[in-house]
This record gives sequence, structure tokens and C-alpha cells, in this order.
Amino acid sequence: MKIHIVKIGGNLISDQKWLNFSLKEFVKLQGNKILIHGGGKKATLISDQMGITPKFIQGRRITDKETIDLVVMTYAGLINKNIVAILQSYYCNALGLCGADGNCLKSCYRFKKKNTDIDYGYVGDITNKSVNTYFIKFLLKNNIVPVLCSITHNGKGNLLNTNADTIAAWIAISLKKDFKDEIELHFCFEKKGVLRDLHDEESYLKRIDFTLFQIIRKNHTIKNGMIPKLENAFLALKNGVSKVSIGHPYYLNDLNNKTIICL
Amino acid sequence: MKIHIVKIGGNLISDQKWLNFSLKEFVKLQGNKILIHGGGKKATLISDQMGITPKFIQGRRITDKETIDLVVMTYAGLINKNIVAILQSYYCNALGLCGADGNCLKSCYRFKKKNTDIDYGYVGDITNKSVNTYFIKFLLKNNIVPVLCSITHNGKGNLLNTNADTIAAWIAISLKKDFKDEIELHFCFEKKGVLRDLHDEESYLKRIDFTLFQIIRKNHTIKNGMIPKLENAFLALKNGVSKVSIGHPYYLNDLNNKTIICL
Repeated sequence: MKIHIVKIGGNLISDQKWLNFSLKEFVKLQGNKILIHGGGKKATLISDQMGITPKFIQGRRITDKETIDLVVMTYAGLINKNIVAILQSYYCNALGLCGADGNCLKSCYRFKKKNTDIDYGYVGDITNKSVNTYFIKFLLKNNIVPVLCSITHNGKGNLLNTNADTIAAWIAISLKKDFKDEIELHFCFEKKGVLRDLHDEESYLKRIDFTLFQIIRKNHTIKNGMIPKLENAFLALKNGVSKVSIGHPYYLNDLNNKTIICL
Repeated sequence: MKIHIVKIGGNLISDQKWLNFSLKEFVKLQGNKILIHGGGKKATLISDQMGITPKFIQGRRITDKETIDLVVMTYAGLINKNIVAILQSYYCNALGLCGADGNCLKSCYRFKKKNTDIDYGYVGDITNKSVNTYFIKFLLKNNIVPVLCSITHNGKGNLLNTNADTIAAWIAISLKKDFKDEIELHFCFEKKGVLRDLHDEESYLKRIDFTLFQIIRKNHTIKNGMIPKLENAFLALKNGVSKVSIGHPYYLNDLNNKTIICL
């Protein structure tokens, strides 16, 4: 049995037209499917409106109480429920989830890094034991499409902020046992793939293996958010997920026109 | 098989200490249970922080686009997920839902009232066909505790604001066929029951039947939010729900110390 695990992020979420389009393409995917989303840009907009200023300690972003409340509202509330309502209007039986719902994604407070004393606040790291595969499979078996936002919980009543790419990678890894070679993990954003030249939309790399990744990371062809995204892609591959790609939802149902990640 | 349908509202939600307490009492209820919540006070606080001003037309409150976004964030995001995380920490397998999730609560835009031309905006009215009892029973059968916020959807991609008391009443009515005489509907708030004198916490009425309701409504013993709450209580009773009460969560597991509503 095949399963598609699709993560959408970036401008796809803040632009309603692109969000609708992405969801239409998602619905067309055959077989089991799971959607994972973040929503950082929308959270920044609302944060500005509420007069909340981002907190940094020694250059690191900190998730304090008012910031976790803000991201829970934005990701688990506004974005997640809008996505679910749109999917339902396309006759896709979506169910919105944060990690606390059905205890589906448990995380731990991020440890303070060695040699620093930074408390990251309400940030949750997930591991190979975080995903409640029993619950996820129970939903899939009943033709329910899980739509997960990037909020997890620690089982002690706290909601924590977790990277959406990391969640997508670990869900794919955790379901490997049940779906074997039939897992496809798609990281979707507003570009056609991993670009060699950020100013040239057509300059996407058709294929990136681990050696090429190390080269383009070293020579700064890729930077910022693309590095952790690729790290998550390789994390999934190294842990047995068979197909991983990065690209635009326009080509979600297409084998070409995207960056294929391979070991 | 018994089922408790509990609605919590008012200060119980905006005060974290009372919220924790209410959820502890909710967890103690034996058998199937469903929690329904609003969160108007919290929404007002966030609305003030965001600089959103309530909209009125001819004295009627209107839910415009920015207001529905605000209540979706607050009810389906902040409040719902905090409740679910707390319940999970009490080993109660809660699952947070808005009406779009699993298509569990469908509503229609409120019709413009006769002789007026008021467009209420994103307000959803529910009927006897709104509740997806198949989905709710599927969750209950699998020992999942549904936690519903007062956001519904119209099946066309729109999220709508719906009164939480009305949702509680219709869920109870819709499950009547399956649970027969074993449905208990509890409306919980920060008072011991329906007070004769708002300044005297002990002045709650032990029992209100429909005749008494008509008298105390006419002589203004009850006003504001208590009138629609009692209307919903009688709606449930008239449609076959056997036990309906209004009171403090402190006495949720107690047959006394609350107002019992009867026909």
C-alpha cells in the first residue's frame, strides 16, 4: 500500500491562491496521504499585529510563553482549520491535528546546548519514538486524511513548537515498517526545487546526492532554511524512506520537474 | 451505555486554575464523554491586543472576516489545543475538533432576519442534520474523547462561528437514538446554577421547569446569556434528552448542588 507524506510551507501557506492550488493537487494523490504544514510567515504577520517582538538570546530565536501561544493559535487554529475546511470542500475527509490530539506526536523540551546556557523555551525535539503510528494508521485505515501542524506536546500539558520538515521526516521514517518501499516524502514550497541560483527559477537541480549536498553546502550555493530541509531529507533517506523530493506543488503528481534527493 | 456531554464556558476557560480544575472533574466522569467549549472572553482579550474592534449593525454583533479568523485562532487553536494537552497529561485520550474536522459539524450561514437586512457574516446555524453522529460514535467506540470548539463549517470551505451551548444541545439530541435514556447534558460555568440573585452565589434554583422559565424570563430574574442557555437546555429536553443541568464543575460528579432543568 502506497503512502504520500506531503509537507507544505513557505509562501504556499500565506498566499490563499497557492494554498488552494496546493490542496487541489494534494487531493489528487492516490492512496494513503498525510499533510504536514508550518506557517511561519503568517505567524510573523499576526505577531506584528499583536505587538509581539521576536526574542533572541545570543543570536538564537527563543519561544517564550507569548510566542508559543501565538504559534499554537496560528498553526493549530487559523491555518490548520482553514486547510481542513478547504479539503472537506473537495470531498477529502481531512482531520486537523496537533501533536497532543490523540497523543499523535510527543516531543521533549530542547536540551540546553553544551557550553551555552540558552533556554530555548517552548521548543520540542522529536525522536524515533515520538510518532504514535498506531493512531496515524488507525485514521488512515478509516479513510481519514491526517493534517498535522508543527505543534507537538510533551505529555505533561505543554504544547511545544517543532520544525515541520523534521515532523514530516520522522512520520515517514516511523511508517516505514508498515509501508516499506511505498513511502513518498514530498517537501513542497514555492520554488521548483533546490535552486543553484536563487534568482533563476529554472536553475533547480534535478538530483542531489549526499556528496553533492556537502559540496553545495560548503560553497554556499544553498543557505538558510534549505540546509535543515535537506538535512531532514537525508535523515529520512538514511532511515529507509525510499523516495524523497523537494519541489513546487504544481508538479506534486509528476515524477519530473522537481529535485529528487538520493543517497 | 451512558454518555456525558459537558459544555464549559465563561470564566472557567479564561482562568487557567479553573480550567485545570474543570478538566480534572471532567476526566472523573465514567463512561463515554464529550467536551464542548467556547471562549468568548479570551477572544475579546486577544481581539483588544490585535486592535480589532467588535462590529455591530443595528445593534447586532457581526462576524466579519477578521473576527472569524480571530475566533478560529482562539477557539480551535489556543483554547482547544491547551485543553487537549492538559487532558492528555491526565491520561485522557482527547482529540480536539472544529466542525470541519472529519466533517463532524456542518452549519449554514445565518439567514437574514425578516424585515431587516442584516448580514451576520461568518455565523453558522446548526440543525438536526448538522451532527455527524457516525464520526462521533466512531471516536467514542475507540476510546477517544472528542473536544469540540464552537467553530463549524458549511462544507464549501468556510469556517463559521456557532454558539457553543447550541452545539452541546444538538450533539445530545443527535446521539439520543444511540444512547436512549443514558444521556446527561451538563452546562458548566462559574456559578452554582441559575441564580435568583446575581449577587448571591447561594441563591441558585434547584429545579427549573418550563413554566418557571417563562416566569423568570418575563420578570427579568434571568437575563443576557442565561436566556439562550436555558432555551438550549429546553430544546434538548423537548427533543428527548433525559437529564440536563446547569452548574459549577465543582459539582459535575454530584447529583445535587446544581440547577436541574426539567419539562
